[in-house]
Amino acid sequence: MLSQASGRLGFNVVILDPEENSPACRVSQGQIVAAYDNPTALQVLGKACQAVTFEFENVPARSVEILIEAGCEVAPGPRALAVAQDRVDEKSFLNSIKVPTTAFAAINDLGSLRAAVASLGAPALLKTRRQGYDGKGQAWIKADSGAARAWAAIGAQPAILEARAEFVRELSVICARGRDGDIAVYPLGENTHAGGVLKTTLAPANVGSQTKAQATRIARKILEGLDYVGVMGVELFEMPGGRLLVNEIAPRVHNSGHWTQDGCACDQFEQHIRAVAGWPLGPTAAHARVEMTNLLGNEIKAWKALAADPAVRIHIYGKREAKPGRKMAHINRILPLARSRPRSPGPARKS
Amino acid sequence: MLSQASGRLGFNVVILDPEENSPACRVSQGQIVAAYDNPTALQVLGKACQAVTFEFENVPARSVEILIEAGCEVAPGPRALAVAQDRVDEKSFLNSIKVPTTAFAAINDLGSLRAAVASLGAPALLKTRRQGYDGKGQAWIKADSGAARAWAAIGAQPAILEARAEFVRELSVICARGRDGDIAVYPLGENTHAGGVLKTTLAPANVGSQTKAQATRIARKILEGLDYVGVMGVELFEMPGGRLLVNEIAPRVHNSGHWTQDGCACDQFEQHIRAVAGWPLGPTAAHARVEMTNLLGNEIKAWKALAADPAVRIHIYGKREAKPGRKMAHINRILPLARSRPRSPGPARKS
Repeated sequence: MLSQASGRLGFNVVILDPEENSPACRVSQGQIVAAYDNPTALQVLGKACQAVTFEFENVPARSVEILIEAGCEVAPGPRALAVAQDRVDEKSFLNSIKVPTTAFAAINDLGSLRAAVASLGAPALLKTRRQGYDGKGQAWIKADSGAARAWAAIGAQPAILEARAEFVRELSVICARGRDGDIAVYPLGENTHAGGVLKTTLAPANVGSQTKAQATRIARKILEGLDYVGVMGVELFEMPGGRLLVNEIAPRVHNSGHWTQDGCACDQFEQHIRAVAGWPLGPTAAHARVEMTNLLGNEIKAWKALAADPAVRIHIYGKREAKPGRKMAHINRILPLARSRPRSPGPARKS
Repeated sequence: MLSQASGRLGFNVVILDPEENSPACRVSQGQIVAAYDNPTALQVLGKACQAVTFEFENVPARSVEILIEAGCEVAPGPRALAVAQDRVDEKSFLNSIKVPTTAFAAINDLGSLRAAVASLGAPALLKTRRQGYDGKGQAWIKADSGAARAWAAIGAQPAILEARAEFVRELSVICARGRDGDIAVYPLGENTHAGGVLKTTLAPANVGSQTKAQATRIARKILEGLDYVGVMGVELFEMPGGRLLVNEIAPRVHNSGHWTQDGCACDQFEQHIRAVAGWPLGPTAAHARVEMTNLLGNEIKAWKALAADPAVRIHIYGKREAKPGRKMAHINRILPLARSRPRSPGPARKS
């Protein structure tokens, strides 16, 4: 989708992807089939391109350095990538710029895990410091006694223990910063997850002006704190009383921003390319309310009925095999753009 | 833009184009670089694809036959292509299904031209029967005495003479018909031309419900009359009193339909691919009013200021060389969706 946005703006795109005939390759001028850390491939990419970006935060930091040494503009930059690749560094950075998160502790061994469970209290969520997405590399510790089992479950590797957030709902904000330091913030989305994977986003979310202002302040602090260039997804917990905690940041276009394709004139993909290319940022106002739903695995089989629904915009990724849980497509259901009404606070849910 | 729409729906696209590194190739999976009538290339294309379409009506009819013989679904079909390739056949077909056009006569030599000028009256417009677009292959005959000069100007070849239409304004309607016979019609656009080339389209146009109904009836007759599959552009003259004449039909997506990219959920490109692929047609309602402007030749140099205007959506084609008059890009300026008011009839303009 980034490549498609680039094409609309007149750019030529070359993809580096270890998978032959990748979905992005189908809609791009060229593809280099190689591992993300292949130095020869990175040299070729660096020579072919003026600017490089990524849509996957687990790209090796060394790869970004090689591209920068080759004279490429790489955005987001190595600092944002490094911070987003390590959950302890990420939360430490956020707290250092006065952006609130859930309480957490760095875990290096079973001893430090037991101490952290005693301090943060159970239930708490143990996650690997690095890698892992869509709920992978995570284990809940439901009682003090569960530490050893969770430690084994995540492979006994450097980790983070996060206190459980008794949030009202999960929101996210898609934001962008240009090379000139200009910042653009999209309306908030309200997210639901199933099995650790994003299921739906409703945007613009029903939130009051204070929540919007709070999310915008958070987005601005993070973007400026990282001297960020590009689109970023910021996952938020809305706590009882309305306070927002940051759950996670993604230094890339984000699944909860897919609604912008059919709700905004300039979607998150074009916005990202504008930022990376040094263009002025585009507008972020919504012209429709959109409910985005991911189609996982065999859910793609419903495409025909969905394509026939005039309120549904379908986006199919062209992946060959519908493995269980694999994101195959998403739909954006277009709803009338209602006046925002703050939702009455419901019962707390659990992270 | 057709290829980009295909990509969003999950299709893989192969382009046949005589130009290496064509704009479409930049955003497609593959390209065959060959002439449109190269039989080997057509065989390869036919084997690679389940369905084939074109965005240029001067594709040889024989090429379409070869693809059909190879087992491809080709849409629009050979009949629509044949009718649209010959201006006399086109107007004769339209009149045969009771769709009004300007008065015309088939011209085979200078003698028949002189007789037609005497019968239709000067001024009148002489056009080659085949080929020619954007004002090419045309010559005005301003007085009875101008026949010989015009006949020489168009290369003394089979032609059509068209009476001048004293129209109020130029409108167009983008319409589509699916494989199931379903028909979809977009709101009308109001067009301005400069030097025979489309300059702007404003859509939805300020027209009353009777004009809309008349255009829809015309679109329906033509689509059904040709057993058409795909998107068609129908250029109209609005005459004093409100009667619509068909100026020309284009068996493809049309420049005056580019506004749909930023004014409608399902643009003309996706609509065409839906029809060609046998999908249900998408919705055609406008969520914004759009003024589309073509950027020709060096006008593309204004891209930076245009990209910085939040009301402007810019679409750049990625052509390497900005030859004078060449369509390099277009912009869609987004305006508030006003209630339609029929425009008060102004003075007649000339075709």
